[in-house]
Amino acid sequence: MDIIVLRPEATAKERRNIVKRLNKMGFDAHVSKGTERTVIGVIGDTSKVSEDESRSFESLSGVEKVHRITEPYRLASRNFQGKGSLIKIGKNVIGGKRIHVMAGPCSVENRANLISIAADVKKAGATFLRGGAFKPRTSPYSFQGLGEEGLEILSEASRMTGLPVVTEIMDPRDIGVILKHVDVIQIGARNMQNFRLLQEVGSYGKPVLLKRGLSATIKELLMAAEYIMAQGNEKVMLCERGIRTFETATRNTLDLSAVPVIKRLSHLPVIIDPSHAVGKWELVSPMAKAAVAAGADGLMIEVHSHPEEALSDGEQSLKPAKFKALMKELKAVAKAVGREI
Amino acid sequence: MDIIVLRPEATAKERRNIVKRLNKMGFDAHVSKGTERTVIGVIGDTSKVSEDESRSFESLSGVEKVHRITEPYRLASRNFQGKGSLIKIGKNVIGGKRIHVMAGPCSVENRANLISIAADVKKAGATFLRGGAFKPRTSPYSFQGLGEEGLEILSEASRMTGLPVVTEIMDPRDIGVILKHVDVIQIGARNMQNFRLLQEVGSYGKPVLLKRGLSATIKELLMAAEYIMAQGNEKVMLCERGIRTFETATRNTLDLSAVPVIKRLSHLPVIIDPSHAVGKWELVSPMAKAAVAAGADGLMIEVHSHPEEALSDGEQSLKPAKFKALMKELKAVAKAVGREI
Amino acid sequence: MDIIVLRPEATAKERRNIVKRLNKMGFDAHVSKGTERTVIGVIGDTSKVSEDESRSFESLSGVEKVHRITEPYRLASRNFQGKGSLIKIGKNVIGGKRIHVMAGPCSVENRANLISIAADVKKAGATFLRGGAFKPRTSPYSFQGLGEEGLEILSEASRMTGLPVVTEIMDPRDIGVILKHVDVIQIGARNMQNFRLLQEVGSYGKPVLLKRGLSATIKELLMAAEYIMAQGNEKVMLCERGIRTFETATRNTLDLSAVPVIKRLSHLPVIIDPSHAVGKWELVSPMAKAAVAAGADGLMIEVHSHPEEALSDGEQSLKPAKFKALMKELKAVAKAVGREI
Amino acid sequence: MDIIVLRPEATAKERRNIVKRLNKMGFDAHVSKGTERTVIGVIGDTSKVSEDESRSFESLSGVEKVHRITEPYRLASRNFQGKGSLIKIGKNVIGGKRIHVMAGPCSVENRANLISIAADVKKAGATFLRGGAFKPRTSPYSFQGLGEEGLEILSEASRMTGLPVVTEIMDPRDIGVILKHVDVIQIGARNMQNFRLLQEVGSYGKPVLLKRGLSATIKELLMAAEYIMAQGNEKVMLCERGIRTFETATRNTLDLSAVPVIKRLSHLPVIIDPSHAVGKWELVSPMAKAAVAAGADGLMIEVHSHPEEALSDGEQSLKPAKFKALMKELKAVAKAVGREI
Repeated sequence: MDIIVLRPEATAKERRNIVKRLNKMGFDAHVSKGTERTVIGVIGDTSKVSEDESRSFESLSGVEKVHRITEPYRLASRNFQGKGSLIKIGKNVIGGKRIHVMAGPCSVENRANLISIAADVKKAGATFLRGGAFKPRTSPYSFQGLGEEGLEILSEASRMTGLPVVTEIMDPRDIGVILKHVDVIQIGARNMQNFRLLQEVGSYGKPVLLKRGLSATIKELLMAAEYIMAQGNEKVMLCERGIRTFETATRNTLDLSAVPVIKRLSHLPVIIDPSHAVGKWELVSPMAKAAVAAGADGLMIEVHSHPEEALSDGEQSLKPAKFKALMKELKAVAKAVGREI
Repeated sequence: MDIIVLRPEATAKERRNIVKRLNKMGFDAHVSKGTERTVIGVIGDTSKVSEDESRSFESLSGVEKVHRITEPYRLASRNFQGKGSLIKIGKNVIGGKRIHVMAGPCSVENRANLISIAADVKKAGATFLRGGAFKPRTSPYSFQGLGEEGLEILSEASRMTGLPVVTEIMDPRDIGVILKHVDVIQIGARNMQNFRLLQEVGSYGKPVLLKRGLSATIKELLMAAEYIMAQGNEKVMLCERGIRTFETATRNTLDLSAVPVIKRLSHLPVIIDPSHAVGKWELVSPMAKAAVAAGADGLMIEVHSHPEEALSDGEQSLKPAKFKALMKELKAVAKAVGREI
Repeated sequence: MDIIVLRPEATAKERRNIVKRLNKMGFDAHVSKGTERTVIGVIGDTSKVSEDESRSFESLSGVEKVHRITEPYRLASRNFQGKGSLIKIGKNVIGGKRIHVMAGPCSVENRANLISIAADVKKAGATFLRGGAFKPRTSPYSFQGLGEEGLEILSEASRMTGLPVVTEIMDPRDIGVILKHVDVIQIGARNMQNFRLLQEVGSYGKPVLLKRGLSATIKELLMAAEYIMAQGNEKVMLCERGIRTFETATRNTLDLSAVPVIKRLSHLPVIIDPSHAVGKWELVSPMAKAAVAAGADGLMIEVHSHPEEALSDGEQSLKPAKFKALMKELKAVAKAVGREI
Repeated sequence: MDIIVLRPEATAKERRNIVKRLNKMGFDAHVSKGTERTVIGVIGDTSKVSEDESRSFESLSGVEKVHRITEPYRLASRNFQGKGSLIKIGKNVIGGKRIHVMAGPCSVENRANLISIAADVKKAGATFLRGGAFKPRTSPYSFQGLGEEGLEILSEASRMTGLPVVTEIMDPRDIGVILKHVDVIQIGARNMQNFRLLQEVGSYGKPVLLKRGLSATIKELLMAAEYIMAQGNEKVMLCERGIRTFETATRNTLDLSAVPVIKRLSHLPVIIDPSHAVGKWELVSPMAKAAVAAGADGLMIEVHSHPEEALSDGEQSLKPAKFKALMKELKAVAKAVGREI
């Protein structure tokens, strides 16, 4: 359902023209004449109408504004599926009572290092291993990741620890090698509206962790999920990792209210990445606990044995001992809100 | 300590001019010539130098930028007082192990209503009563609060329940009547940089709850606290209540990372107001729990017996039964993070 | 006219309850049942309904969202007055073909300095003198303005040059002395929602320059103007001076599109302050020219003879020679868009 | 040059550790002990140090913060090339006295339509034809562009009118067909940090129009340009098209101050796209004129013969007659600022 608000000076002819156009599109029009304004209610299944078609009415003569009532996403909507989705990955189920922690370094840097971290985070209770092989870096002169070699190391660490692996894809041309080595494909924040990449990962059955863009609304995040799901892949997890605001005390601003908001709008599981949001390791623990209390289904946390030597994002990585201590605290908070870790 | 970065083309004369000016202000200058740039370190107690004086160097010939190293606030700084402040209000102490919940309606609407709500929130475990008598309303045609009559009702409800009262001041000319009836003076978000009002409440010993402005950085919030403290009143509590961002799914975006950030920078207690942040009662509970998990010292929550008849902010108010249920959940989360409610 | 969108699961009883409430308020209800959603159109003059009353429907059982169709401001609206307002101040008329330039230092610092600047800006073509006597400073330790002495100096400079004077009010208790010495009262960005101050300046006939708050929407700016106008003072000029965004290359982000947007929504004149927006004198000239091209009715520009010694905002002040050169350029741009300076 | 600020409690050992690490990286360290803080100046060519390496110092024990002094981009920097770049495309030169207008529909919809618009905009004075064949759409259910067929139509319209063609690339796999048909490759706002795509277009000599991301800082825009230039392609034009802020009166907020800011930091030409920024055709003209007054080197404007039937962005497109009128106005403004159209 859409609502079309006419300009105060709109003529009867303009009004009829709009109604005619709606009828031609297969909709009924319901005209309400108020004392100041006339509005036209669009009756019919407007969920099939794209945002742009809907907005195109704003260029019609006599129209002031179009209010969209229907959500522009369908498959991702809570109305489409009332129950929260459960996503099975190996022995793990995301979206259920158990909260999953995905931990590991920002980038895969070398074999020894990754295997050591993987063992540490597994021991502390993490159920997924994260690590980047293809790295989106702000500067062309920064370390860009080990590429396929990094994927092989991740794969080996996964075999050794039994932890499924999450890693980022940056280029649709890498899909083959990623599918081979990885359990969960991550779409990074900067690629949330790289629509071709979304369609590519949507064409396979591999679970996807979709990160919210730095300035993406929750509605846009759900539309990005819709892009993946419309290709047939329904195994999508949404990840809030901080949005861009005017505040500079943290790297980004963690929008934790996204958790209950998404839970109302969608059936997809929600993961929180406090490390990228705050950008400073000292702030990771309180925000991880807050995320669990807010109802998150999972956490993504950067852990590095030697943060000061990390090739990326060292300042926001926890050392294994800190991570272990945090896991213990998280268990207590999870229990307090009826979940478990 | 400030750092003055010179332009690549700055001359030796310009450099000497800057050094001379620093010396005249009582500072030593420490010149570092890099291969691309020259920077001048300002040696001495620059905390006495205002932001503006510091920035004024940017209008000197040859200067590219001034980086401020020293925090511009002193009394509010963790460096000034290492231990967290404890603020005593009646029998309550804010900033200690116990987390305090300040609950009540957005506006005081009538005697019967307020007294009923006050009894309900007390029973549920709230330790402060909140309610507005002077209301900052976006529209001049909205209900503006009961004024002094509202203060008298608050005062009566306080006597009946034993709950200390928090209410907002909007005009320095109201200070007399506010001091008479109220236990904690609230400075609202829209007045966070109403410097005359800050100075006015700073001139008395009454505790102040200072709300963060919609687009205020944490640094600016601390500077606003400094305004109050510089007048001699050190009983300041800081309140995060949502900042303005591009996201419209919530009324504002609750910046929960402000809790650990402020805890590092300042010794002042931090209160979270989830009601104003999210603007929808269904989202209040998860964010209240998250606030406790993040380390907040208190919560401010809107409660109304008949939200649908509230003269303001009904859509974000909890009914007493919901509030009671929330308090129970909060107790569990508080315990999980080593606090109590 | 408001539109009330019901939840998909809303019952007939809930719907009747909402209709009954509307009828009680004196409105007709127009129910449109769509295939997915039902919406209720509110028929009648809802402009008398405050934003809050309107929003209060969101706390009614069965309601998803309320869309406001009617603008919440009346006196400030272009619908209320079709022609652009002309505001006469001495011999100057703001809002007509002529674009006015208000120039002067950020703060009045001393008599000699101000009089020298006043003479310079008058000679270059400015038609108003700006200068602050009461200064809102982020730090309590910064220069706070000369107060009444500053007003007297402004008044003297005004008599000597014939330029009307614009200065900021920060405290309703200063209204008497301000009215005595000043031609235009400025409400600063930080006080745009200091509603008591708005009501105070609304009670007198003196023209008001109302600055947009750092994070205020254009709608909120117009509501703040409505506060002043509702008290009887219709001589309001709106001033865009930069909004707060994530970008840090400029002090604020100058939202020049506010000029045509406000022109469509309101009959009030629009002034642009590029100095505070960009915060760096080198960027002032291009943005001043852009403001004129966008259709601004006036400019507010900081000029200082010795920016490097200014007690505030020196880095964004033009020297008199630069200002003179800019005025010449502005004349050419004004002519190109059918205006004059 | 970087500045490393130590924590107040940093030990001598921690300090020596940092200095040692700097020396190992080939830098000299210049320690300044202030009364409150110690800072370390890094001496040497830090422009080769990536942002991440620089930031990694923040995870070292004893470090509070790293201030970056050197710009992280080199090839895009005004320091690297003092004179503004001139980019030749056919007979047109971008970056010189002449301001270029790139006009056309949002999407190529069909042959007849595009050819008619192309003829219209050429006649009105446009010097480039814009049009999308691959369209990034928020919804998977929206029209996604005609793809290669669209490129062929563009190419034909280009041959008929002599106007060089600008079109967007979304996927590195399309580079071949794009190179074949197009004169300027556009990187859209949503792909500004699609680093693989940047590298792909950087590998060829075809001029690139790089749009600023919705929440990208100017520094990040320049880093994205650096990605392209680092591959050998120096023909990069930067395009400001509105950033995301809290204001909803316009689709985005046009940051016109980006023009003079970029002119100071970089030698690359700057193009303004007012259509996408404001999102409403009535606001396009004032902002186009403002852009010229602010010093833009070009404009990108959406023109459509039947905006109400456009498959995308009709509400922000000018009809040919309006566009013609605007071009006349733009010529006057260009002349007033010493440029020509």
